[in-house]
Amino acid sequence: MNTPEPGLPMTVPAEGLPARVRVHEVGARDGLQNEKAVVPVEVKAEFIRRLAGAGLTTIEATSFVHPKWVPQLADAEQLFPAVAGLPVDLPVLVPNERGLDRALALGARRVAVFASATESFAKANLNRTVDEALAMFAPVVARAKEEDGAHVRGYLSMCFGDPWEGPVPVEQVVKVCRALLDMGCDELSLGDTIGVATPGHVGALLTALTGAGVPVDTLGVHFHDTYGQALSNTLTALRHGVTTVDASAGGLGGCPYAKSATGNLATEDLVWMLRGLGIDTGVDLGRLVATSVWMAAHLGRPSPSRTVRALSHQEQ
Amino acid sequence: MNTPEPGLPMTVPAEGLPARVRVHEVGARDGLQNEKAVVPVEVKAEFIRRLAGAGLTTIEATSFVHPKWVPQLADAEQLFPAVAGLPVDLPVLVPNERGLDRALALGARRVAVFASATESFAKANLNRTVDEALAMFAPVVARAKEEDGAHVRGYLSMCFGDPWEGPVPVEQVVKVCRALLDMGCDELSLGDTIGVATPGHVGALLTALTGAGVPVDTLGVHFHDTYGQALSNTLTALRHGVTTVDASAGGLGGCPYAKSATGNLATEDLVWMLRGLGIDTGVDLGRLVATSVWMAAHLGRPSPSRTVRALSHQEQ
Repeated sequence: MNTPEPGLPMTVPAEGLPARVRVHEVGARDGLQNEKAVVPVEVKAEFIRRLAGAGLTTIEATSFVHPKWVPQLADAEQLFPAVAGLPVDLPVLVPNERGLDRALALGARRVAVFASATESFAKANLNRTVDEALAMFAPVVARAKEEDGAHVRGYLSMCFGDPWEGPVPVEQVVKVCRALLDMGCDELSLGDTIGVATPGHVGALLTALTGAGVPVDTLGVHFHDTYGQALSNTLTALRHGVTTVDASAGGLGGCPYAKSATGNLATEDLVWMLRGLGIDTGVDLGRLVATSVWMAAHLGRPSPSRTVRALSHQEQ
Repeated sequence: MNTPEPGLPMTVPAEGLPARVRVHEVGARDGLQNEKAVVPVEVKAEFIRRLAGAGLTTIEATSFVHPKWVPQLADAEQLFPAVAGLPVDLPVLVPNERGLDRALALGARRVAVFASATESFAKANLNRTVDEALAMFAPVVARAKEEDGAHVRGYLSMCFGDPWEGPVPVEQVVKVCRALLDMGCDELSLGDTIGVATPGHVGALLTALTGAGVPVDTLGVHFHDTYGQALSNTLTALRHGVTTVDASAGGLGGCPYAKSATGNLATEDLVWMLRGLGIDTGVDLGRLVATSVWMAAHLGRPSPSRTVRALSHQEQ
């Protein structure tokens, strides 16, 4: 146990955990996409620059969906070039070949597709069956990799529970994961879109995936804090060998104060735990908190992250 | 995996965890004691009755400290008799022999003393050294047990970090724990009073304690969610064999919105995780959420518990 710097936890490692975790920062995309008031493109670019300055190395920048679907991200063509020179990975979402064309034309080197583990959400989100959605992504993944050597992430939503279907069988998730890897995805992000997972379920899914031959180093986890479970679930995933964790600076995402309470795991709460465990992330927690406080001021409401509140003495 | 009832998680057990956890509910005492506006005694009594109705079996009721110290709990003489007939355990805090006399005169069968693992907090909270505080408690514990056969809990504050001293060496905590058990305490509650613990530290302390011969079934854990770590720390404690967990209905305690952000672990967030893991607590989550919503309405601000917010569709 060391004497920590101010604003940092004591460091006491635990056995059976990785030495390093890669934080996949989703605040600028997943965090902002449901904000009703459009955030000016220059504010978004500055947010991404500050996230990079805080030591984050994978910062999801935007989405090349049709502007009609997600008006908040309709500025992708302006935003991406404004941050493309940063020395970090800047993955972007691409829903289809048209989106891929737009992203590649701007020099994107990492793209992500977003599949669903359940028929109901595939229908609601993509107006397709699960298999039809996979068929739509196959040429996107193939072209991204073969023509441009891009890195491809496959998001998988509703890996634990689905608001229409209830519990999602792990076999169903394994099947879609296999399909995404078989079409060429380099990594997967297992999403608990409605925040209902608990640690036993997380362990069961990861055990089933690795048992089906999915390499654990292709797996990331993406937990929502709807019921306050995101960090416990993340800790469980780390114990199962996962080393890529999605999180959102300041807990941006959905609206934690509104009906459906769908906030992302806050990057600061994650980094606090990892720092305490002696797990390297490369993130400067003080600079990250300052970035989230700055963004919260822009959005006009406090961050829901407890670490941000504690370290910034943020009242509300 | 089962199909859950509405408002409950799927149940997927994990290996290496206990079958049952006893929740030590502290909302009525620890949760309310820092509220500036005095809550009427009848509201407190109704709160405790509703907590019992939700299935909680250990409900800390009040504190027999001098009324000048904690004005919010100055009604202990009125409150305790109003709830004493409930079929649950109702531990009360007693700081000294005078407090013990008052509690025993009302028929209390479970009392708790509150020690500190650090000299600085002992001085700040009790105006004594650690050893002087222990000497003050020794006759309280002895009389409670020998004269009345009461069950005695020993709270231990600042078991991980201390705002004046920084990291607290585990050896120091072990020493005070041993002293409390040697004087006759039946159980201990290990407090992370400022919320700085992380899972490695929790595991290291529990390993040190059991290694020093402290039976794990005498140990409870008491985490604060200042940095969002309370539930991960609790999960870690369960993996080390702990089966008594302190929590506060709705996350009452301190003021999570103010500078020092010292909210307790919310009972609802805990019960959600335990229910998901198939760990029995006897708590009816729906009734508990309704109780916290009712109390939040009385206090005039929303519960900070994410589970309460999600299940009550509580806006703020």
